[in-house]
Amino acid sequence: PIASDSARRRGSTGRPWGNTNTQGEEARVESKHGMNGISHRGRVLTLDSMNPNVKRVEYAVRGPIVQRAVQIEKELKEGVKKPFTEVIKANIGDAHAMGQKPITFFRQVLALCSYPALLEDSKFPEDAKKRAQRILEACGGHSIGAYSTSQGIECIRQDVARYIEKRDGGIPSNPDNIYLSTGASDAIVTILKLLVCGEGRDRTGVMISIPQYPLYSAALADLGAVQINYYLDEDNCWSLNITELRRALNAAREHCNPRVLCIINPGNPTGQVQSRQCIEDVIRFAKEEHLFLMADEVYQDNVYAEGCQFHSFKKVLFEMGPEYSNTVEMASFHSTSKCYMGECGFRGGYMEVINLDPEVKAQLIKLVSVRLCPPVPGQALLDLVVNPPQPDEPSYFYLLFSLQERTAVLSTLAEKARLTEQIFNTVPGITCNPVQGAMYTFPGITLPQKAIDKAKELGLVPDMFYCMRLLEEDGICLVPGSGFGQREGTYHFRMTILPPTDKLKVVLQKIREFHLRFTQEFS
Amino acid sequence: PIASDSARRRGSTGRPWGNTNTQGEEARVESKHGMNGISHRGRVLTLDSMNPNVKRVEYAVRGPIVQRAVQIEKELKEGVKKPFTEVIKANIGDAHAMGQKPITFFRQVLALCSYPALLEDSKFPEDAKKRAQRILEACGGHSIGAYSTSQGIECIRQDVARYIEKRDGGIPSNPDNIYLSTGASDAIVTILKLLVCGEGRDRTGVMISIPQYPLYSAALADLGAVQINYYLDEDNCWSLNITELRRALNAAREHCNPRVLCIINPGNPTGQVQSRQCIEDVIRFAKEEHLFLMADEVYQDNVYAEGCQFHSFKKVLFEMGPEYSNTVEMASFHSTSKCYMGECGFRGGYMEVINLDPEVKAQLIKLVSVRLCPPVPGQALLDLVVNPPQPDEPSYFYLLFSLQERTAVLSTLAEKARLTEQIFNTVPGITCNPVQGAMYTFPGITLPQKAIDKAKELGLVPDMFYCMRLLEEDGICLVPGSGFGQREGTYHFRMTILPPTDKLKVVLQKIREFHLRFTQEFS
Repeated sequence: PIASDSARRRGSTGRPWGNTNTQGEEARVESKHGMNGISHRGRVLTLDSMNPNVKRVEYAVRGPIVQRAVQIEKELKEGVKKPFTEVIKANIGDAHAMGQKPITFFRQVLALCSYPALLEDSKFPEDAKKRAQRILEACGGHSIGAYSTSQGIECIRQDVARYIEKRDGGIPSNPDNIYLSTGASDAIVTILKLLVCGEGRDRTGVMISIPQYPLYSAALADLGAVQINYYLDEDNCWSLNITELRRALNAAREHCNPRVLCIINPGNPTGQVQSRQCIEDVIRFAKEEHLFLMADEVYQDNVYAEGCQFHSFKKVLFEMGPEYSNTVEMASFHSTSKCYMGECGFRGGYMEVINLDPEVKAQLIKLVSVRLCPPVPGQALLDLVVNPPQPDEPSYFYLLFSLQERTAVLSTLAEKARLTEQIFNTVPGITCNPVQGAMYTFPGITLPQKAIDKAKELGLVPDMFYCMRLLEEDGICLVPGSGFGQREGTYHFRMTILPPTDKLKVVLQKIREFHLRFTQEFS
Repeated sequence: PIASDSARRRGSTGRPWGNTNTQGEEARVESKHGMNGISHRGRVLTLDSMNPNVKRVEYAVRGPIVQRAVQIEKELKEGVKKPFTEVIKANIGDAHAMGQKPITFFRQVLALCSYPALLEDSKFPEDAKKRAQRILEACGGHSIGAYSTSQGIECIRQDVARYIEKRDGGIPSNPDNIYLSTGASDAIVTILKLLVCGEGRDRTGVMISIPQYPLYSAALADLGAVQINYYLDEDNCWSLNITELRRALNAAREHCNPRVLCIINPGNPTGQVQSRQCIEDVIRFAKEEHLFLMADEVYQDNVYAEGCQFHSFKKVLFEMGPEYSNTVEMASFHSTSKCYMGECGFRGGYMEVINLDPEVKAQLIKLVSVRLCPPVPGQALLDLVVNPPQPDEPSYFYLLFSLQERTAVLSTLAEKARLTEQIFNTVPGITCNPVQGAMYTFPGITLPQKAIDKAKELGLVPDMFYCMRLLEEDGICLVPGSGFGQREGTYHFRMTILPPTDKLKVVLQKIREFHLRFTQEFS
């Protein structure tokens, strides 16, 4: 489409018309040969005339490399010969897609909720039935097909609050501060939407880590907020450093109004687990600098490294005393998609807000009401995640089995985390920090200058070129580091550690061989 | 909170600070007695310093009256004596909450998808198993707990396309033009987000009917778009009139750039069903005036009135010939929440786009990728809705039963639609159009001047005052017409016709008595 190619070159103008290749109506086109007499108005909605903020959105985790991976899968199905027989999608933290099995108890309860006639079936354990009955009783018409309240089903919010209290050693949690959501992404975008305003130098600035999970940069582009990058310290296991936070903040104050600090702990894509001290420093910094804290804690159960432990921002905040716990505004996010259950497809999640202005809370409830409610099956699943089978429930042996499933998943992940670090660090030109938590590794890769030049020649960023070659040659789909952000002149990729151990070993070996081959080719 | 009350009086300033009642930190407050020496910065996020677009959002269907209804329910539970024993929430189209039972076959398949061990269970019909197996095979790792592609599972999009082709008498539908969504609301907001841009007089204007479903006004406020009202003709059964469309458009051209025309057919809250002629006129108008058409067709199966029939915008568009079908840009929306199944809690839905610029499609896919995927259980449910049990499948008797459930639901709704119109029109001061389709009635109510004055005295819009009194006196929760928009000086309420017939009769009788009492009180 020539016209729209030229439109793209002109970039976004916000002009409310376009001149793309629409056929079949009167046309009025300025061609490169001048007016050609055919008059038409083209499409209403074109690249030229669409929302420029949407154009600025990028989301690497499902970007062009993944689209190419899907295409290659189709080609394989159609019998096209390749140097490999399957595409391994290590681009996304999707446990079930990697063969992990769902927790039996959770799915039994969901089946009972979906088709309550099964409540009469003796094959289902009594505990599962009790849970299903409790959830159904909290639903309109006792059906998960009814809308829930927009904030989420009340008894599930109570269970979430109890879960948080238990996690945080008794620090109280109020169900009124819990908002169920469509995955964590939904809640993160909602809070950002409340916070972003102002024009020009008054525009809200939001501090995000680099590397970051690209939901953040995408949401900020969409909202037209100013993205403030603070860099994690790769040489110190991707740790967060207050000096760097302060540098980034001071620089940003020149051109925007920084109001928000986003933290991902355990880190995505970087896999680090923050120390208690670091969290305390961050909270102190947020208070001093008058920043709203957003704590993305969806990997709170995914901690593997010796000596590492998850500390929730809320717990640390409250342990710092009323001077902090009564003043620092915060939202913490959690999800059913990660941890040991990995139930991504259900889109369950919640956030807890702390010290949120009561008037803003009313606005938040109004805002979430517009979308009616989070998916009820996801809410039901979340209820089971925060309130898993307890020892005092009647069918305890069965529950033990469920808990064994959970433990097995987590210990296997810990093993894979170690394996990944070990093997990558045997490859000259790959440097891999320990995967302390979450489910990704983000190793640095050294690329020869000739490869960088070749990439530029092809119009690709160098690590995209690297990942595309890996995909074409070995059928392994990774995400280039540039999709998450990295220091100028450094290159990385993100890989999930979720593939089954045997397959992961093959993947690591193949990447090793590819890297050596690639390096040699461009030396 | 005195400080924030004063903040509210000042209105939205977009200033990035607030001075609400935060305790426990250094304070710098300008009190009404001047500087009092206590210095503090207050909260980061206050009514004053939040996104002003969010503040402008209103969503009456779950507004203050519903919050009061929930409160009254709690009071009843706590034993507070009221003139009624239960609150009837006729404010929302939530079929299951009103006692409608889910379609057995759908829920069997969902249970099988949730807990595939049931595939071994002889109690489940073979058809249900086959469907579940097909859906599971299309899922990553054969689990509905895996993410799907962001556009939705491919075989489900194929089924949706086949459904549309069958509905539209063979007009082709391309699965690549189908986008699955988290209910219809999600897709509607996504398309609006692509379309809204520009500043000042170039800002995108979006035409919506008055009365409208408040998702539209809420989304437009959130996006900062210009809302262009066109009024439906109450005296002609809420029909849409091209002269009025043109009037609204011309007036709007003075101050914005109108680019989008939204239509709800069958109508919400007004229940009218558009004639084929009207749809043709609308399409011609959209083409002439260079508008993007958004057709909200979520009530396409809810048509009751003699002589009325649902015509999809797409079908009419294609029947008008290539001059239209190759040029008019359109998106049509559908959902699992309405029709005969009423599965609101699953948040399933889809949109079909027609003539969307390929480059914009790429942007759309990128945009939906950020939220990863629509809930997979909702996608599975949508698959069953668009591809219900067929006569040639093995357990046909069972399927017949499912189809009977469907027919029963729809014929009961038709009866309730007639009943509602009949009874309301016996009440002096209530004027009710036929409920031709959808699941609501939006009768006009005549309010005595004294009641209007009393409402103003209380700071309420008159029909909110009316509905609040009805709620307090009779426990019936309706939504005031002002939440949907209405002509100046007219008053209405929206009521769903979903309550079971016996209960609906009681509701209608109670509203009748209330209206007479209310009118007398203020005469």
